Amino acid sequence: MRAAVLFGPGDLRVVERPVPVPQADEVLVRVAMCGTCGTDLKILDGHFPQTPPYGVHIPGHEWTGTVVAAGSAVDEFAPGDRVCIEAHHGCGRCGNCLTGRYTACLNYGDSAKGHRATGMTANGGFAEYAIHHVSALYRLPARVTDEDAVLITTAGTGLYGLDTAGAYIAGQDVAVFGPGPVGLMTAQVCKRIGAARVILVGTRESRLRLGRELGADHTLNAGEADPVRAVLDLTGGLGVDLAIEASGGLDAPEQCGRVVKRGGKILFLAFYSGPVRLDLGAMVRKDVTMYTSRGEGGDNVRRAVALAAAGMLQAGRLVTHRFPLEDIAEAFRVLRKREGDPLKIVIIP
Amino acid sequence: MRAAVLFGPGDLRVVERPVPVPQADEVLVRVAMCGTCGTDLKILDGHFPQTPPYGVHIPGHEWTGTVVAAGSAVDEFAPGDRVCIEAHHGCGRCGNCLTGRYTACLNYGDSAKGHRATGMTANGGFAEYAIHHVSALYRLPARVTDEDAVLITTAGTGLYGLDTAGAYIAGQDVAVFGPGPVGLMTAQVCKRIGAARVILVGTRESRLRLGRELGADHTLNAGEADPVRAVLDLTGGLGVDLAIEASGGLDAPEQCGRVVKRGGKILFLAFYSGPVRLDLGAMVRKDVTMYTSRGEGGDNVRRAVALAAAGMLQAGRLVTHRFPLEDIAEAFRVLRKREGDPLKIVIIP
Amino acid sequence: MRAAVLFGPGDLRVVERPVPVPQADEVLVRVAMCGTCGTDLKILDGHFPQTPPYGVHIPGHEWTGTVVAAGSAVDEFAPGDRVCIEAHHGCGRCGNCLTGRYTACLNYGDSAKGHRATGMTANGGFAEYAIHHVSALYRLPARVTDEDAVLITTAGTGLYGLDTAGAYIAGQDVAVFGPGPVGLMTAQVCKRIGAARVILVGTRESRLRLGRELGADHTLNAGEADPVRAVLDLTGGLGVDLAIEASGGLDAPEQCGRVVKRGGKILFLAFYSGPVRLDLGAMVRKDVTMYTSRGEGGDNVRRAVALAAAGMLQAGRLVTHRFPLEDIAEAFRVLRKREGDPLKIVIIP
Amino acid sequence: MRAAVLFGPGDLRVVERPVPVPQADEVLVRVAMCGTCGTDLKILDGHFPQTPPYGVHIPGHEWTGTVVAAGSAVDEFAPGDRVCIEAHHGCGRCGNCLTGRYTACLNYGDSAKGHRATGMTANGGFAEYAIHHVSALYRLPARVTDEDAVLITTAGTGLYGLDTAGAYIAGQDVAVFGPGPVGLMTAQVCKRIGAARVILVGTRESRLRLGRELGADHTLNAGEADPVRAVLDLTGGLGVDLAIEASGGLDAPEQCGRVVKRGGKILFLAFYSGPVRLDLGAMVRKDVTMYTSRGEGGDNVRRAVALAAAGMLQAGRLVTHRFPLEDIAEAFRVLRKREGDPLKIVIIP
Repeated sequence: MRAAVLFGPGDLRVVERPVPVPQADEVLVRVAMCGTCGTDLKILDGHFPQTPPYGVHIPGHEWTGTVVAAGSAVDEFAPGDRVCIEAHHGCGRCGNCLTGRYTACLNYGDSAKGHRATGMTANGGFAEYAIHHVSALYRLPARVTDEDAVLITTAGTGLYGLDTAGAYIAGQDVAVFGPGPVGLMTAQVCKRIGAARVILVGTRESRLRLGRELGADHTLNAGEADPVRAVLDLTGGLGVDLAIEASGGLDAPEQCGRVVKRGGKILFLAFYSGPVRLDLGAMVRKDVTMYTSRGEGGDNVRRAVALAAAGMLQAGRLVTHRFPLEDIAEAFRVLRKREGDPLKIVIIP
Repeated sequence: MRAAVLFGPGDLRVVERPVPVPQADEVLVRVAMCGTCGTDLKILDGHFPQTPPYGVHIPGHEWTGTVVAAGSAVDEFAPGDRVCIEAHHGCGRCGNCLTGRYTACLNYGDSAKGHRATGMTANGGFAEYAIHHVSALYRLPARVTDEDAVLITTAGTGLYGLDTAGAYIAGQDVAVFGPGPVGLMTAQVCKRIGAARVILVGTRESRLRLGRELGADHTLNAGEADPVRAVLDLTGGLGVDLAIEASGGLDAPEQCGRVVKRGGKILFLAFYSGPVRLDLGAMVRKDVTMYTSRGEGGDNVRRAVALAAAGMLQAGRLVTHRFPLEDIAEAFRVLRKREGDPLKIVIIP
Repeated sequence: MRAAVLFGPGDLRVVERPVPVPQADEVLVRVAMCGTCGTDLKILDGHFPQTPPYGVHIPGHEWTGTVVAAGSAVDEFAPGDRVCIEAHHGCGRCGNCLTGRYTACLNYGDSAKGHRATGMTANGGFAEYAIHHVSALYRLPARVTDEDAVLITTAGTGLYGLDTAGAYIAGQDVAVFGPGPVGLMTAQVCKRIGAARVILVGTRESRLRLGRELGADHTLNAGEADPVRAVLDLTGGLGVDLAIEASGGLDAPEQCGRVVKRGGKILFLAFYSGPVRLDLGAMVRKDVTMYTSRGEGGDNVRRAVALAAAGMLQAGRLVTHRFPLEDIAEAFRVLRKREGDPLKIVIIP
Repeated sequence: MRAAVLFGPGDLRVVERPVPVPQADEVLVRVAMCGTCGTDLKILDGHFPQTPPYGVHIPGHEWTGTVVAAGSAVDEFAPGDRVCIEAHHGCGRCGNCLTGRYTACLNYGDSAKGHRATGMTANGGFAEYAIHHVSALYRLPARVTDEDAVLITTAGTGLYGLDTAGAYIAGQDVAVFGPGPVGLMTAQVCKRIGAARVILVGTRESRLRLGRELGADHTLNAGEADPVRAVLDLTGGLGVDLAIEASGGLDAPEQCGRVVKRGGKILFLAFYSGPVRLDLGAMVRKDVTMYTSRGEGGDNVRRAVALAAAGMLQAGRLVTHRFPLEDIAEAFRVLRKREGDPLKIVIIP
């Protein structure tokens, strides 16, 4: 099969590789499409820990496709089933996996013990075929397109974050910082589960406009006015029940702290290039709880698929660029340079 | 003012009474409308504990209206504000109130200590004017009609139940037994917060039809086929994530136990005329958690108002009958006899 | 090796069997001791679903011993390590396992998919050697004896129940019905985590006396006086914060409902021989939540081991009878006939 | 009565004042003793918002005493009852009070609406008599001394923090930074509710020694060695389940982040003199949840009293200095200068 293999920092080449063979609990999928994301850039640059070695590693952790073969212990899927994925399969034996927090697996990256993060600590979806553990696949109904399916994984990230933060958003006000794919899908999900008002904060008008189309009630351009002041104005000075940080900006965490209501919650879904400064004393005085989550755990991709199956999610609309596998290097160049304001670039193997 | 006063079991008369005067933390409301419910029948029959004495008690606990005057410590509301209510104001000093469970106030019915359940342990809304504690009023936007407002209290009951049950319904399957006002509003709310499938079980086709219009994905007529079997068929034998019992039927709790998934939840929102039989051993083997809730606590009427304000709830549609206050006895006769299949009968003082 | 194999209902014979060989994720243990419990009687009588076939099945699910060999993917244990167990290893791929509720695994009993309940759906500890999945083993410090280790599994059941019920028992009042091994260990654990008062209800004075020695503040003999009245008297009429049903008596669930405080919790840890009658309406009026749990999931055996390691648990004291493996039939006769008031009978292979 | 009144920044004078008269829901207490804490220094210096005006304000928020008179709606207490307190009584009408988070009352400091934080936004206990809302008083058994009673409020702070953080500490490892009164009482409480290991981090040997006597399993002097390294060494590199920050040191939050286990929790109980730097990206990668709490809410002083009543808390031992009310200025001088290494200085009116 054709596959994009990482041979060294920045050296991703499309080469021939044997089609992988599924083990007892694994499923072999013909990849229809695989999304790219910022984490892929870290992987390409060699800044992601615990990947397979250079010359072996096939990245890609947002893929979808059609089942081709299933391992001997799999009866949940059959050839022809269309599936989407979550990236992580935990070891199933550490204290975190036993208590349902497998994205925080204590054996993260230890493939001998069964942990797998597709495209990150194991081979992934920038290839014609990929295998994954059966636990991390979800069957798709016909109404969900391939482009939808790529974003369902992203919606799962938002849903898991909300789950982590004790989500029961009905009638509540939410601010989302960062209208990237995670922020946009999370804003949309918040609206779908009954948020009274979703306030989306960003800097690019095109993304804010899309946010409005996906359900955001208000959008704030942080390049034009102080978003903290604006959120407080919109909420009568009280602040929001939940602030979600999905931008990765170093100032955004403190802004979240300032827009959240006394007794409210902050959910951090982003990574940061360095330490952040927080007025932690103010958080304590306000009794704010700060949640973090990584990945799309807690069976939340199942929720995302169910929402999509019921027609409640617009997902594929976030796809702005499509590249065949052979042009994957060009795709990453476009992503890195932000050429044409890419939101979600997908690779079609 | 004109008010319906209970003079003895079954003896509800519309008489003149002085307009009540709000204390510091209270608000005086010109009642626009007040719903009737099964609990009112118990009150009329003298089967509700801790009511005010005969000759004094004005029932009615689902009312809405316009603020006329506010106590000295109230700046949240001003004359002219339209408001809806929740029934309960807790004592604010017992262990349950301190931990946010004021509908289970340990000083329930003790008005000297500040507890009040309007229309139940204090005078309520079958009158031209009513007072309530400021904690239990919620301002209404113009788009919410009076008939909507009556049902918002009922929606609050469903939302509180879901809150109690650790609601995060997005993408989950829910079965609701009993398409009365609580069941219908709860089914609707489940759909609004992202339930994948809402299965509504009842016996009257008219109500099931309304349930479908409000968002139920499937309706089952328990008079025509075994609902347990039908729910299991719809869910591939797995059962639902959450079963909600809002019918009060003595067999329904056990049916909930049989349709709920291993590891699932049951929420009991109804009262029962006698003991129920449960295969509790099966519940233990399935790791089922059983929640109960009463009333519309936990600030959930605020959620309901916010959903209605955002256009996410259809509420007033449940009103089937309207009576002027002077005809309240006739209204209760119709309710008791179920004449014309009443769903929500409202009184207009 | 010598092993007790079930050849048919009531037909448990000690025979020769090959020592099992651990797979990659498994550990082979030389069994030091294995407890017996009521569930074993159901297994012997043929009333437990999904066991291995007659002629193959080795029961025993409360065992402890010393590691002899470990599979290729195991580095957590080495030969010579003393270990205790939890019974369940989930499939690791269903929605319940993914969310940490593996004792409610949706593939319960499906060994092809990886589920295993030792001694129940897989071979267990009434043998010289047993294998188990690495996820279900916990290393023991020297201060924990073999007899302690058997009861640590039982303590795990109580701890998991408390976990399920949102345990934070510090300063709260707890009633425990049923001073069998689960009830006694749970009562003890409640006291260890700060219960203000633990009230133990039973019928056998010997067990109540042991309960007092293990930490119960009050014991009530239900054969001598109405335990509901007595618990209410002890709590000034308020009732307890948490009632734990560990007796399996058909009347006990309703008694729990009557002794629990408004807004309180009931935890059902027992199985029942038939349907129970519950005044469910009273539960709804009191806002009571009813939890159930089965087995010792949620990584709670780890908690139990840690408590024992820190000297906070008295465990081995519950062992009243010891039999060599060859006399296992006699052990079960004694258990069934309750000869000599057995509390925990252990088998020493 | 004699009372210490704040007449301006740093100007606390003991003067004559009338004995306050309890309103309907209030209780008048003859103060036996009142603790001092760092927050009092901020109040004295004029840096606390929403206090009563200069010339009126009597500080003191950790007091205990004997009931002298009770308001007309109080039957929970009678003259002669010894009581301790929690500082906060919420407004009982905002969304946070309704959901049990009254220490984050949205009407904080608004006495007209019923909010009261004794000694902070209302008069407190540096006086011969004080009044408080009945919700915030707890009856003491004889075995609890006055010095114990002062520290019970502090224990309530720790217990509320644990409650906020979803405490179920049995068998878990906890690190506590800062062996001041809050840190020491919280460390002790953690041990009492079953922590496997409590690791206390500080800089003063005298306090660490006291910590060991109160139950800490390990103490680390951060002035002598890197506490992060030491905690990781003690936990086999894994880190602790819960890190509690009670020091207020600007570096301590980040140290908490580094000693907490993947999937673990941090609880911030301190205030900070300025912004803190946090490697928030590392927190996200580790799925760490950060809780904050302020005060002793959630009915947790009731827990603290129950623990003390059951003999499970050593409290009064933290009292190191005692001053009569007339010498309160000297007491605060000693506190500010840390003369004689004061831990808890109490004032005896």
